Amino acid sequence: MSVNPHASVEITAFKQVPDFVQGLVRDLRVRWALEEAGLDYRVRLLGTPRPADYVQDQPFDQVPCYSDGQVSIFESGAIVQYVGEKSEALLPREIQARYRAIQWSYAALNSVEPAILNVFAVTIFHADQEWAKLRRPGAEEFARLKLKRVSDWLGEKQWLEGDSFTTGDLIMVTVLRFLNHTSIVAEFPNLAAYQKRGESRPAFQRALSAQLADFAANQPQSELEEAAA
Amino acid sequence: MSVNPHASVEITAFKQVPDFVQGLVRDLRVRWALEEAGLDYRVRLLGTPRPADYVQDQPFDQVPCYSDGQVSIFESGAIVQYVGEKSEALLPREIQARYRAIQWSYAALNSVEPAILNVFAVTIFHADQEWAKLRRPGAEEFARLKLKRVSDWLGEKQWLEGDSFTTGDLIMVTVLRFLNHTSIVAEFPNLAAYQKRGESRPAFQRALSAQLADFAANQPQSELEEAAA
Repeated sequence: MSVNPHASVEITAFKQVPDFVQGLVRDLRVRWALEEAGLDYRVRLLGTPRPADYVQDQPFDQVPCYSDGQVSIFESGAIVQYVGEKSEALLPREIQARYRAIQWSYAALNSVEPAILNVFAVTIFHADQEWAKLRRPGAEEFARLKLKRVSDWLGEKQWLEGDSFTTGDLIMVTVLRFLNHTSIVAEFPNLAAYQKRGESRPAFQRALSAQLADFAANQPQSELEEAAA
Repeated sequence: MSVNPHASVEITAFKQVPDFVQGLVRDLRVRWALEEAGLDYRVRLLGTPRPADYVQDQPFDQVPCYSDGQVSIFESGAIVQYVGEKSEALLPREIQARYRAIQWSYAALNSVEPAILNVFAVTIFHADQEWAKLRRPGAEEFARLKLKRVSDWLGEKQWLEGDSFTTGDLIMVTVLRFLNHTSIVAEFPNLAAYQKRGESRPAFQRALSAQLADFAANQPQSELEEAAA
């Protein structure tokens, strides 16, 4: 277990979120990267409302932020890349391999995630709205097109660039997870196997457990009473 | 002018696109970064349909790709960062300043662009569809929320991290341009001034001219006949 209250690395996370985003919040990526790199971290949990000055750390009022005494940054893609700088388990040193990994982080976040989050929006956040019902088939179709591109590229490879897991895979697997409430990824068996391969890594399992443990430890009083009843 | 058919750097771009995306296609970012860095480049123009094997260079069948004999990558965010490695005019060397810039690239592409492209989708690509008409107010409101966050952060600063232009500003300015057909950015005067500041840079002007020149040189025959009539 690498959560350590005396660690020099601090990240931010939410104290509590609705059930349907537990295991999806973006601090998961950073926890996972830190676990792969073998780095301890401590967590600064944020309640609701967030402290008014938190936007000075994170202008979008989101999580995670990262600080290690030397570097303070936000945005999960950037943080995962920075953690990758500390460990060849995440980011190769050779320049071409290194930038192939970085390229896949950007691709996951900019060429894949927006299409997937639009599915998330019409099936979860706005599911009861008329526009969302009308848009759902088109949004799902567009996400499928993007997944097909990734699936075709992946082919029989273990990871996006071959035999070595990188930051690009870490981000891509967490992006695919936003479709966990659908069966869309399962339509692409090699992608479904790829996601499972990522989620089977011990570092992922520790990261997920740690995020869920924080939510469990901070359940609203009403839910605790219900559970005890 | 830095477009040079003998340059070692090659990027890909489209031979032709509809009017409403001219000046927006993502090779603009890479041309701009190369101009800021003072690096010559040549352009491999792609017609329609793209060569079947192009997905081996760019799995999403999009532009740009980048190749310099040492590194071959796709995804504009990654390419701009890689070009930034070659020039302190784009990416500071000191680690904290460097990662603040990288963080803003990721933020522009992942925390801002998706909201803006959803506005682009409902006002341009799908404007005549019922769901898009119903969604438009909500999509615009969500984009405004994101812009307000950036505007609040920017305040009276010249660039996102102060006095020095970085890759983060380069990407953010090109993201804001996807709202050029609306007056939404103008609702945030400091952001509108920031966008203009970016677009006034000579390197941006050269990049934009070069992209538009390629489209002008490859007009469909029918349009040439119409212009001559």
